[in-house]
Amino acid sequence: MSGWLAIAGLGPGNEALVTQEVRDTLAEATDVLGYAPYVARVAARAGLVPHASDNREELDRARHALRLAATGRRAVIVSSGDPGVFAMAAAVFEVLEEEPDWLGLDVRVLPGITAMLAAAARAGAPLGHDFCAINLSDNLKPWVLIEKRLRLAAQADFAMAFYNPRSRTRPEGFGRALVVLREVCEPERLLVFARAVSTADEKIVTVTLAEATPGMADMRTIVLVGNTQTRQAGRFVYTPRAAP
Amino acid sequence: MSGWLAIAGLGPGNEALVTQEVRDTLAEATDVLGYAPYVARVAARAGLVPHASDNREELDRARHALRLAATGRRAVIVSSGDPGVFAMAAAVFEVLEEEPDWLGLDVRVLPGITAMLAAAARAGAPLGHDFCAINLSDNLKPWVLIEKRLRLAAQADFAMAFYNPRSRTRPEGFGRALVVLREVCEPERLLVFARAVSTADEKIVTVTLAEATPGMADMRTIVLVGNTQTRQAGRFVYTPRAAP
Repeated sequence: MSGWLAIAGLGPGNEALVTQEVRDTLAEATDVLGYAPYVARVAARAGLVPHASDNREELDRARHALRLAATGRRAVIVSSGDPGVFAMAAAVFEVLEEEPDWLGLDVRVLPGITAMLAAAARAGAPLGHDFCAINLSDNLKPWVLIEKRLRLAAQADFAMAFYNPRSRTRPEGFGRALVVLREVCEPERLLVFARAVSTADEKIVTVTLAEATPGMADMRTIVLVGNTQTRQAGRFVYTPRAAP
Repeated sequence: MSGWLAIAGLGPGNEALVTQEVRDTLAEATDVLGYAPYVARVAARAGLVPHASDNREELDRARHALRLAATGRRAVIVSSGDPGVFAMAAAVFEVLEEEPDWLGLDVRVLPGITAMLAAAARAGAPLGHDFCAINLSDNLKPWVLIEKRLRLAAQADFAMAFYNPRSRTRPEGFGRALVVLREVCEPERLLVFARAVSTADEKIVTVTLAEATPGMADMRTIVLVGNTQTRQAGRFVYTPRAAP
């Protein structure tokens, strides 16, 4: 039997948000690879080999999975959210570009519910108009580029979603983003801090930019920033479809 | 029994991309509302009343659904893709803001696989770095704002996803966007035209900006524009995680 590799999105955490396509693919897999907490979300069963690794080992994991597929195994790399949004899909294609021998393999990306859309749904519809998604981690890009993007996004009046706002190794990133936002946005701008969306630990907090503090975000938080029109209707935050 | 309203995303078309949460909610509903082709995707059954309407009637549909929930019905508004991305969720909150009597109702948004992420998955990982989503329809915003956003997004080196690039009533929008892109991006920039993603009519075409023509997009197409780093690895298009 010929092998394959699927790069699958498990959604933000709740099993009811996993697609049937991903369930069916995992049911046929022989190997599941990923950052340990994501591999732990896949139910163990006979015939399925788990390969958990650290979250800084993306390229090694991609090579391992492609090697498995090349030897006839049916491998699934699992990502949280959507694999194409700040997750494993790009890492696999980076390896494929370097290793053209593997280009003939059956490689598929299976979309998932990405964290910003699950967070937006819980809050209301803060991304209901044009928006952007920015990874605030400066592991793979210079901070000066992040800052430039924040300023241009505010100028474009995009709503924004921030992934990886803050981590143990980079605690200062989100605080620096807040400084930039305060230079270019009005103090009444609405922000949503959505932590551990769709899990038992879920916590959604809406504040103005004036009220926001760096400590409101951690590594399990997605931060959504409204545009100039974003407003509240009762407990909901939404961005109107129309722009002036 | 008390009524409720769910605004649910059906994903891009393939039933395997509908979440279990949405399936379970539809199974409990008494009424399903939406643009006719989306209501048609929900299997008919005894006890479920379909209310199909035209795609220009969002606010009337939202009012109708809230009125149903207020009278104890269990209503689901179905959107294609994700309800929070250029779809029905914002319209419901616009009505809720005008009708505070309904704010006490049980209203939930159920996320779905939005078209740009399904399209990106089919192509590879073109949105694998910071990106933005722009609705090219000028029904609800002036074209000058769309043009401004395109220029700023290119300056920020965002990958981009265009929703509603072209329709029967606004055939010229995407052609105008191409003119702007040609002013600010290099001719080798990669574009993906993803039509009817995940359905039997799916067609994915990758071209350079120099090769792109307005006729490559229609109302069923999502257009993805790479950033300066976006490249091809065999049949895949991807944007590397790192930026220079």
